Amino acid sequence: MCELLGMSANVPTDICFSFSGLMQRGGATGPHKDGWGIAFYEDRGCRAFHDPTPSANSPLAQLVSQWPIKSDVVISHIRQANVGRVSLENTQPYQRELWGRPWTVAHNGQIPEVLTWQLGGFTPIGTSDSEHAACWLLGQLRLVFVNRPSTAELAHFFKSRCDELAKLGVFNLLASDGDELICYCTTKLHWITRRAPFGEAKLSDADLQIDFGTETTPNDVVSVVATQPLTSNEVWHALAPNQLVVFKHGELVFQSQN
Amino acid sequence: MCELLGMSANVPTDICFSFSGLMQRGGATGPHKDGWGIAFYEDRGCRAFHDPTPSANSPLAQLVSQWPIKSDVVISHIRQANVGRVSLENTQPYQRELWGRPWTVAHNGQIPEVLTWQLGGFTPIGTSDSEHAACWLLGQLRLVFVNRPSTAELAHFFKSRCDELAKLGVFNLLASDGDELICYCTTKLHWITRRAPFGEAKLSDADLQIDFGTETTPNDVVSVVATQPLTSNEVWHALAPNQLVVFKHGELVFQSQN
Repeated sequence: MCELLGMSANVPTDICFSFSGLMQRGGATGPHKDGWGIAFYEDRGCRAFHDPTPSANSPLAQLVSQWPIKSDVVISHIRQANVGRVSLENTQPYQRELWGRPWTVAHNGQIPEVLTWQLGGFTPIGTSDSEHAACWLLGQLRLVFVNRPSTAELAHFFKSRCDELAKLGVFNLLASDGDELICYCTTKLHWITRRAPFGEAKLSDADLQIDFGTETTPNDVVSVVATQPLTSNEVWHALAPNQLVVFKHGELVFQSQN
Repeated sequence: MCELLGMSANVPTDICFSFSGLMQRGGATGPHKDGWGIAFYEDRGCRAFHDPTPSANSPLAQLVSQWPIKSDVVISHIRQANVGRVSLENTQPYQRELWGRPWTVAHNGQIPEVLTWQLGGFTPIGTSDSEHAACWLLGQLRLVFVNRPSTAELAHFFKSRCDELAKLGVFNLLASDGDELICYCTTKLHWITRRAPFGEAKLSDADLQIDFGTETTPNDVVSVVATQPLTSNEVWHALAPNQLVVFKHGELVFQSQN
């Protein structure tokens, strides 16, 4: 199993806090030592960092966890290899341009059968089942919508296609093009929305405590999605099996019924 | 004008040395303060770093210049903005997946008229003429070749299409998918092939001197391409106007006659 982390905010927010917790799981407190990656959306642009080494020992992870990159949306993934060798090209999240937007997809779980599914438009660079699924999803998106659809259309599209993928095995997903943060769960995914006034949050993994009140403004709304709750003194919502939720500008804007 | 840097090697090689020289031009010894980016090819994978801040002051550039990332091909760009605002999405090099390979394109010069050219397959994320040209080139590539062509076919394709782009203005280009390093020049591009035994090289920009003999093995071949020669005690070859050269595994494998 791998660890996913996503963030959606109404003002550009840095994720150093949440990422510090996730990093420790990459070889230190968790078994996810086969690489990590993170994509930061800033306005229309996106910068991604990928490293096929354990995040707990990575100089790049160290930099990213200390450097306050202000983002609207973040997607991060820490990998324990199942399908596909440990290498840079198999390191998530995967990115492709669609409709002039940089799409990012991260998956945890195993769905090896997807490797037999026919693709169109996007071709995997590596050999993982996750990248094959990402290419399939984005290829389907391009096939169905000539132009970028609305939030509701995106939500319904991802729900129906993720339901198909989930028939193959464990399929927890985060996807975004910098606007909505789309989250689908089969087994484990938790979310929390934090809004001003922010309290003190205590990380479950690292010996780190931050008072959000000193870091944010009174109107800030930030939602964080993670495989496991990252903090021990807040209540996180667990997604149900086959449930899809969508965040936009920090707020939950769509929630499927199953 | 912006600064380009490319590298092709027969064994994974780190470019810290050459990048240190280029970095200094981003706000320190040169006027290229509007962001920088670098793509490192490692086997089939590619990791890219983009930063819309001056490279001379960037913590990310500092990390990249000190961290020995062993690569087969490197493409880097330092920007002085002409067309398109200073932002992450306008920061080169640009990347798109084609035939399951991560293509990277970097351009220096100004060809604003290209913004009126019709595209197919790839859409710009930002607003720069350079990204529009990159999308046009890759769209044409996909249109002409269903599967990845040979080195000679790639060379002839890029020569003919770059000649068209060069009619619009200054068009110096580096492109790669991790195999060949394709270089096209209208005004300024220089290259050098270094092979064992390596001598001492003195950077033109930074107060740094490295004996390549201690860093490499007897069979290493490395070619470096840059807007301006990066070292002061070696002879660099200047490309002629409208000339295309291609490097593969460190060696010059194609050179057009004009």
